[in-house]
Amino acid sequence: MKIALVIGSTISTIKDEVIRGRKLLIVRNADTAGKPTGEPYIAVDTVSAGTGDLVMVTDGSSARYTNQTTNAPVDAVIVGVIDSLELGGKVSYRKE
Amino acid sequence: MKIALVIGSTISTIKDEVIRGRKLLIVRNADTAGKPTGEPYIAVDTVSAGTGDLVMVTDGSSARYTNQTTNAPVDAVIVGVIDSLELGGKVSYRKE
Amino acid sequence: MKIALVIGSTISTIKDEVIRGRKLLIVRNADTAGKPTGEPYIAVDTVSAGTGDLVMVTDGSSARYTNQTTNAPVDAVIVGVIDSLELGGKVSYRKE
Amino acid sequence: MKIALVIGSTISTIKDEVIRGRKLLIVRNADTAGKPTGEPYIAVDTVSAGTGDLVMVTDGSSARYTNQTTNAPVDAVIVGVIDSLELGGKVSYRKE
Amino acid sequence: MKIALVIGSTISTIKDEVIRGRKLLIVRNADTAGKPTGEPYIAVDTVSAGTGDLVMVTDGSSARYTNQTTNAPVDAVIVGVIDSLELGGKVSYRKE
Repeated sequence: MKIALVIGSTISTIKDEVIRGRKLLIVRNADTAGKPTGEPYIAVDTVSAGTGDLVMVTDGSSARYTNQTTNAPVDAVIVGVIDSLELGGKVSYRKE
Repeated sequence: MKIALVIGSTISTIKDEVIRGRKLLIVRNADTAGKPTGEPYIAVDTVSAGTGDLVMVTDGSSARYTNQTTNAPVDAVIVGVIDSLELGGKVSYRKE
Repeated sequence: MKIALVIGSTISTIKDEVIRGRKLLIVRNADTAGKPTGEPYIAVDTVSAGTGDLVMVTDGSSARYTNQTTNAPVDAVIVGVIDSLELGGKVSYRKE
Repeated sequence: MKIALVIGSTISTIKDEVIRGRKLLIVRNADTAGKPTGEPYIAVDTVSAGTGDLVMVTDGSSARYTNQTTNAPVDAVIVGVIDSLELGGKVSYRKE
Repeated sequence: MKIALVIGSTISTIKDEVIRGRKLLIVRNADTAGKPTGEPYIAVDTVSAGTGDLVMVTDGSSARYTNQTTNAPVDAVIVGVIDSLELGGKVSYRKE
């Protein structure tokens, strides 16, 4: 799963009912300090995440395997909010 | 899902009946201002998008999970037209 | 789907019967003028494509969803021959 | 499967019960000497790996095919601890 | 499918019985002359390939679709040994 930072949200005109009913957040993959390093993309929120949260994103077909996205045409879903990351005994990121 | 800009269309000779019956658009992944940054690829349109639209593209196996692409050999589908993108309270893109 | 140029073919010793019975072409992803830009890879031909053709390649799990590759261990399949690409009203590529 | 080095762990707030019950490790893809070369990401541990271990990571949909991750929304799972890597008759990495 | 060069092998401690029973080779994606260009990764051998062989690798979910890897947590499998590659009428690679 990717370490990603939530940087914003999108409003879109969507036909699929599963996607339409969910919050769509803009995220960027991040390093272990929570600093964004990747290109922006859109992930379905399933954990009430918000801008500034560091989150865990599942992509590919497994994005359809949360109970909120079953069989939906989605390829990225936020499955967790990261509380802390620890590298070799030291905390590299902690949620404020 | 990718943020992508529709830049054109393609006419192709295709055997598969599901793909043949659908509009095939050329898109490029884009940043949060709607500026294209990625290589061009082809996505099946399911939302009546057109050139110049910023769209949401689902790729991989989930591209088969719209009701217009079920079990079709497609790996990228346009699932929404982006109306606006908001970063930290500011609108970074708005559809004209 | 990828825009790709067919640059050659391969002869390989293969156990799987579905793959063995099909033409295996070498392709490279290409830009909207048909110029190759990506690394070479192998795609199963399902549309009688040949060297020099610009084609549409479906990759990932959806490569198993043509009627010639069902349940085969393939991850890239040629699903169409591109006749023309049009960008903003101008033809950027036309098959000769 | 990827050759990856375990560099740390994460504590996250997760809804999905399958993921919540498992150890989530931070890994980076590595070369044949075990030196990390890729960006950090999160993988589900199924083999009691720890920081400093060189491991084998399966990603994509196949991450759901261990008996500990069946149908879970995960896209990367550690399926083995690498004991040694051998290149052309020479050992390039051996677990201490 | 990828064109890849077999550069070595790995011994790993693995729980999954399907993977454990198979030879795990280290490969790197290669160009049409057989020269390696990509990062090393691990692929399940299903065709009795060996170091120095140029092979055809299927990755992603389709790696589970050989009769030796059905439903196994693998994301890369060697499905063929490349005998020759031909580009525009000229042989660019031939197995010795």
